[in-house]
Amino acid sequence: MLRTLLLTPGPLTTTDATRAALGHDWGSRDPAFVALTSRLRSRLAAIAHGEDTHDAVLLAGSGTFAVEAAIGTLVPRDGRLLVLANGAYGERMAAIAGQIGRACSVERWAETAPVDPGRVRAILREDASITDVAVVQCETTTGLLNPVEAVAGIVAEAGRRLLVDAMSGFGALPLDLRQIRASAVMASSNKCLEGVPGIGVVVAERSHLAACAGQSHSLSLDLHAQWRGFVANGQWRYTPPVQVAAALEAALDQLDAEGGPQARLARYRNNHAMLTAGMARLGYRTTLPAALQAPIIVTFDEPGAGFDFTRFYDALQAEGIVIYPGKLTQAPSFRIGCIGAIDGHDIARALDCIARITAQQAEPVGTN
Amino acid sequence: MLRTLLLTPGPLTTTDATRAALGHDWGSRDPAFVALTSRLRSRLAAIAHGEDTHDAVLLAGSGTFAVEAAIGTLVPRDGRLLVLANGAYGERMAAIAGQIGRACSVERWAETAPVDPGRVRAILREDASITDVAVVQCETTTGLLNPVEAVAGIVAEAGRRLLVDAMSGFGALPLDLRQIRASAVMASSNKCLEGVPGIGVVVAERSHLAACAGQSHSLSLDLHAQWRGFVANGQWRYTPPVQVAAALEAALDQLDAEGGPQARLARYRNNHAMLTAGMARLGYRTTLPAALQAPIIVTFDEPGAGFDFTRFYDALQAEGIVIYPGKLTQAPSFRIGCIGAIDGHDIARALDCIARITAQQAEPVGTN
Ligand SMILES: Cc1ncc(COP(=O)(O)O)c(C=O)c1O
Ligand SMILES: Cc1ncc(COP(=O)(O)O)c(C=O)c1O
Repeated sequence: MLRTLLLTPGPLTTTDATRAALGHDWGSRDPAFVALTSRLRSRLAAIAHGEDTHDAVLLAGSGTFAVEAAIGTLVPRDGRLLVLANGAYGERMAAIAGQIGRACSVERWAETAPVDPGRVRAILREDASITDVAVVQCETTTGLLNPVEAVAGIVAEAGRRLLVDAMSGFGALPLDLRQIRASAVMASSNKCLEGVPGIGVVVAERSHLAACAGQSHSLSLDLHAQWRGFVANGQWRYTPPVQVAAALEAALDQLDAEGGPQARLARYRNNHAMLTAGMARLGYRTTLPAALQAPIIVTFDEPGAGFDFTRFYDALQAEGIVIYPGKLTQAPSFRIGCIGAIDGHDIARALDCIARITAQQAEPVGTN
Repeated sequence: MLRTLLLTPGPLTTTDATRAALGHDWGSRDPAFVALTSRLRSRLAAIAHGEDTHDAVLLAGSGTFAVEAAIGTLVPRDGRLLVLANGAYGERMAAIAGQIGRACSVERWAETAPVDPGRVRAILREDASITDVAVVQCETTTGLLNPVEAVAGIVAEAGRRLLVDAMSGFGALPLDLRQIRASAVMASSNKCLEGVPGIGVVVAERSHLAACAGQSHSLSLDLHAQWRGFVANGQWRYTPPVQVAAALEAALDQLDAEGGPQARLARYRNNHAMLTAGMARLGYRTTLPAALQAPIIVTFDEPGAGFDFTRFYDALQAEGIVIYPGKLTQAPSFRIGCIGAIDGHDIARALDCIARITAQQAEPVGTN
């Protein structure tokens, strides 16, 4: 039987080894699980090269929980957050700031345009009230890669703090905390780490985190308090998703075995190249120019006349291939993911199905 | 090989069938997972007999996340919460209210005394500013059962709303929303439902929930918004822990197969009776009088002279039996859980180990 492929922005396809690691019960305050948590924290900080300056704080929940925890804990109550937005995940950070009561300015770009560092420099010069800047590394709405390094340089130069939503690329896209200064990098157990969903990760700058006691708007999402807990006794404050944590460790073992983030990125790049080339042969055009596209998820324009996305989705689903059932962009489009435990064979299988479905869609409906 | 027994307040021992259900990948917006979510929501509301009046809202995270979501979404921003506290989980609700900025009064009882409904009546008469009352059904700190029905009657009579933290008993202890009025009952996928941890549950009164748009202090923990999402398209707003959800469905199947909450309670009662009788034979006394004790988790007084809890814990752990490695009570004590996928044979095995360890502890240390 062919396995189900999840070619989505998450949850993603995982390996049998990762799912096998879900199969045990763990006492969450038992030394064995405390040690597992400690290993996870070190390894996650090291993926971003933050071991000397940053600590990884883990939270139950999805990626959004980690983003909210970072904003709520690390942006001062009397601070102001500048969100750089060119898609749904930038907008989500602005929505979080709004709902939790942090002052927030939003600077917007088109969905198909990267954040412009020059504009960020000008805004920071003009508005002295901005204390923190938030940017999305790979804006999963389209798959666009923002110039995080350039933005980080400008933010550091202006003496402000930077939060990076690295959710969709962490573990594959380069992000080096020795090169860029960031008070927080947000990630999740799912996505490029290829664990199962259920744990949010914040790799937070130790010196700043230490100064953020009592700042969080939430008890459950208080990163400072959870960090203090980890430092004090290695335990999660509240019942952790123990099986998800064990699967994350198995997934990190596989990341190492593959050769680390660079090797993983190479696999995704290959998936991406095969996908876009194959789709182009079938007449599907990418929404973004190649230069802006990260090899994480690709947005394709709806081909127009005769194309029925629901039929397309259902036909793929019937073949065990799940894509995102909708769109986040403003323009008519659909997305196909390149990440998760999939390789060129899986992309070839998907392209094969898409070729058949596309041929069927070209036939008039209701004339059998 | 003997399996590990988790005789704790959670995470708990689960069945092989429950963990086997973790073994698949799911697209979270795919119709199959949307249908699974819908079945979970109906079945969870029905466990509390709330199907006509209440809706189950699911959240990624631990039980505390669900408690915080309920308080933040359902207690008005200008309301006042009265927390009835006789242990750590009552205190946690007060801490949540404090941190999220809801006005809060705390009425405290000794850890070994149940909440007194008469005092609640008097407080509600005196303080008209109280809009909501929060109580813990089984206070897991000691294992004490609070008189939720009597409290609910008084709160309803006084025209206030009630939130019930039913975390440690949901799925076993009786709780009937046709008999008591509550704006929310909070539970978790772990505990007596015997799923794996990672999902918090709030069974919320539909009429009140509908009036709570925009009230939450948090985006991730906004129950109203998540409820609107479920109603609109059946989807979780943010990536759900899909494997944990699938395991919860398997666990609910097993709850039905066992004969529902009543049968499960009977199994736990038997575990509890065997445990306390066996421990009494070994000289361990329960902290609570039998009349106050729920068959969920039992607190035993430390026997004093010669008893070394760390050695006791480690020796049990070496035999594959994990208890809570510490205490939440003020008095020197330790706890042993009666819940999870365990039965009389497991309790007999645990008692056997405890008998041996107790005999060893009686021997002087360092004279081998
Ligand atoms: C860039 C980015 N940020 C945040 C999120 C939110 O993650 P979650 O759905 O796990 O809450 C996602 C999910 O796709 C994402 O791609
Ligand atoms: C009564 C009660 N409330 C809340 C909680 C908190 O649950 P969690 O540890 O999943 O956050 C617990 C956990 O033991 C509990 O027993």
